Amino acid sequence: MQALKRAAAQEPLRPAFAGWLSETNDITARFLAAGGVPGLINLAGGLPEPATFPTEAVAALATEAARASGETLAYGPIHGLPALRDAIAARYSTPEMALSRDNVLITTAGMQGLSLVGQVLLEPGQEIACQSPAYLGALDAWRPRRPSWRPIYPESNGFNAAEALSGAQFGYVVPNFSNPTGRLVGFERRRALAEAAEATGTWLVEDDPYGALYYDHEPLPRILSLSGALRPGPYRGPVVYLGTVSKEVAPGLRIGWAVAAPEMIEALAMAKQGADMCTSPLTQRIVLGALETGLPEAMRPGILALYRRRRDALAAAMAAHLADLFDWEVPVGGMFIWATAKRPDFDTDRLFEAGLAAGVCVTPGRVFDPMGVDRRSIRLNFTLNDEAKLEEGVRRLSKAARSL
Amino acid sequence: MQALKRAAAQEPLRPAFAGWLSETNDITARFLAAGGVPGLINLAGGLPEPATFPTEAVAALATEAARASGETLAYGPIHGLPALRDAIAARYSTPEMALSRDNVLITTAGMQGLSLVGQVLLEPGQEIACQSPAYLGALDAWRPRRPSWRPIYPESNGFNAAEALSGAQFGYVVPNFSNPTGRLVGFERRRALAEAAEATGTWLVEDDPYGALYYDHEPLPRILSLSGALRPGPYRGPVVYLGTVSKEVAPGLRIGWAVAAPEMIEALAMAKQGADMCTSPLTQRIVLGALETGLPEAMRPGILALYRRRRDALAAAMAAHLADLFDWEVPVGGMFIWATAKRPDFDTDRLFEAGLAAGVCVTPGRVFDPMGVDRRSIRLNFTLNDEAKLEEGVRRLSKAARSL
Repeated sequence: MQALKRAAAQEPLRPAFAGWLSETNDITARFLAAGGVPGLINLAGGLPEPATFPTEAVAALATEAARASGETLAYGPIHGLPALRDAIAARYSTPEMALSRDNVLITTAGMQGLSLVGQVLLEPGQEIACQSPAYLGALDAWRPRRPSWRPIYPESNGFNAAEALSGAQFGYVVPNFSNPTGRLVGFERRRALAEAAEATGTWLVEDDPYGALYYDHEPLPRILSLSGALRPGPYRGPVVYLGTVSKEVAPGLRIGWAVAAPEMIEALAMAKQGADMCTSPLTQRIVLGALETGLPEAMRPGILALYRRRRDALAAAMAAHLADLFDWEVPVGGMFIWATAKRPDFDTDRLFEAGLAAGVCVTPGRVFDPMGVDRRSIRLNFTLNDEAKLEEGVRRLSKAARSL
Repeated sequence: MQALKRAAAQEPLRPAFAGWLSETNDITARFLAAGGVPGLINLAGGLPEPATFPTEAVAALATEAARASGETLAYGPIHGLPALRDAIAARYSTPEMALSRDNVLITTAGMQGLSLVGQVLLEPGQEIACQSPAYLGALDAWRPRRPSWRPIYPESNGFNAAEALSGAQFGYVVPNFSNPTGRLVGFERRRALAEAAEATGTWLVEDDPYGALYYDHEPLPRILSLSGALRPGPYRGPVVYLGTVSKEVAPGLRIGWAVAAPEMIEALAMAKQGADMCTSPLTQRIVLGALETGLPEAMRPGILALYRRRRDALAAAMAAHLADLFDWEVPVGGMFIWATAKRPDFDTDRLFEAGLAAGVCVTPGRVFDPMGVDRRSIRLNFTLNDEAKLEEGVRRLSKAARSL
């Protein structure tokens, strides 16, 4: 925010920017920019390996989609293409839970789903029961609505789901390989969250960008499915499930979806109308073609094998170079290892800067803390870099840490 | 909003939706849905003629774009692809005003630009100096921030630009063929607005989706250019110019841009990060290819000839069937004719319903009034339908009006 402050000093006549801008951070912009620094090893973002992108399949689907120009080059329906909404409804329906297109809104990737939830549920000061630490992007999305934060810890011992959700506007959990911690919320906790949302009435946002990235065992049931099973039939429950093709196919398509009760879908659609009117029907049609031809399933074994190897390589490098300084758990899925310094006074904001100077970029824990106080943790990504770079990145980080 | 109210009654436990949702309207959804009713003539939306879409050119560009998958299928920079930002900067630079990529943010179509402006400039209750009547989508975009409205009339006699802008968070004008009125803001008024924005410091949003749709004479200089000429050099002035390819190439690409002072671009980028992280680099690359190959310029003569004919056909049909009931000016550009009932007690909300029953959909004036009180006007679109349908639509409308 330095640029904004400087600008304000030079242009005293201009009306002030909205207050939330001074409370946000530029860390995402900084580590995206770090991608352009020659020789720097970027362990900071949550970027996929570009070699996994299905280039020729998308090229063929894109040509076909453009030729359906009466639909794909026109304005699309606010809610998304009906055929894509039907495909998403079919994807998540279970024997106990019947979904229809009325349960589905197509979004401009998962990020927009988070933003729209904030628009329809938050007045200034209202409370989010937020799994902590939490996805930076979710904090970014909700900051303009000026909420207050109630940290909840659904993977921790003694978690009481009803207490966690009761009285909040909504709960927020990433049950599969949470960003930033990589942790999995277990089956019993999922059921407890589904039941607590039903009992308390609190909306429960189940954000699931990483669900397909499981390396050690099969995925657990979605909280959405467990919620649906509580009241069989058309889904009208409190879970708002957010999905995306960003990790299963490619992020550049910018296609995601919300699956929820029809009244929530209608409210989100009202907010979407004022946010971007509709998502590109061209990229929607490409994704529909990808789903119809089974592209995510065809890609999955290769992606899982690649990322499992890289996770193992990062964990091995950390064990070799950082074990005396940090503690961590090796995650069973996702894109990240979350490490916490053994020394309580270790400052990972300083490590971030020292790492940049040493040629490695990691994400400091503070940006994932709704309160902004945790300075003891770092998040390391293992999907973007090959094994040799992961090893070298950790070496540089270890050197930087010891220089503090 | 009937669905939301019903839902609230059935689910008393759920936290309330944010207050702005109960103040919005479902007119856009209704007239988009009207597009699906067989036999209905839709004069309500602002939709282009699909026959103008450059299907084969986009198909070729899409294939090429997908093959650059390392860039186009990955996450893109929050601000947009550098090459596209450079192309937009070059497009709007003038001898007096040097623009660089630092002056440009790529948006998910023009609608997102409006939404982001609201996010960065509005706290609840703050004032927008808003050209009235105003684009429905702008009102939709800003409603979640709960602003107050100061109507301004830059095409009217006696308009005082400094008085209009002074003390507001920002001014909003559509100088080229305003939606809904189709009116042009003249050269002297543009200069007065540029000077008043500079003098008062108030940001001035120049929304220009229709600038390329001029039928009777060459376009006037942009307020952005006039503002830039006041302080030659790199642009740091108060105008926030919003553009889009929706009317020049195709709306389904969902690509627009904001051109503004670097500090405003940085603030908008912060808001964009929390709104959808980045616009699809795939569709950005298609648009870059379109600009590089001169596609908008190649398409323009055909589009202008087609829409000029249709404007003339709608105006002729209105003269034949509605001249005793309504007054209007034939616009020199854009997509709409705005008609106001001669009788002050004529209710165009009722005409909207009667029109639907008679097989024609128009937009009632109320939805363009920030205060929601005007019930005397209607907006008729002339770009989507051919001459015979325009004539038949006006016949039906005339019949419906006489049945009230």
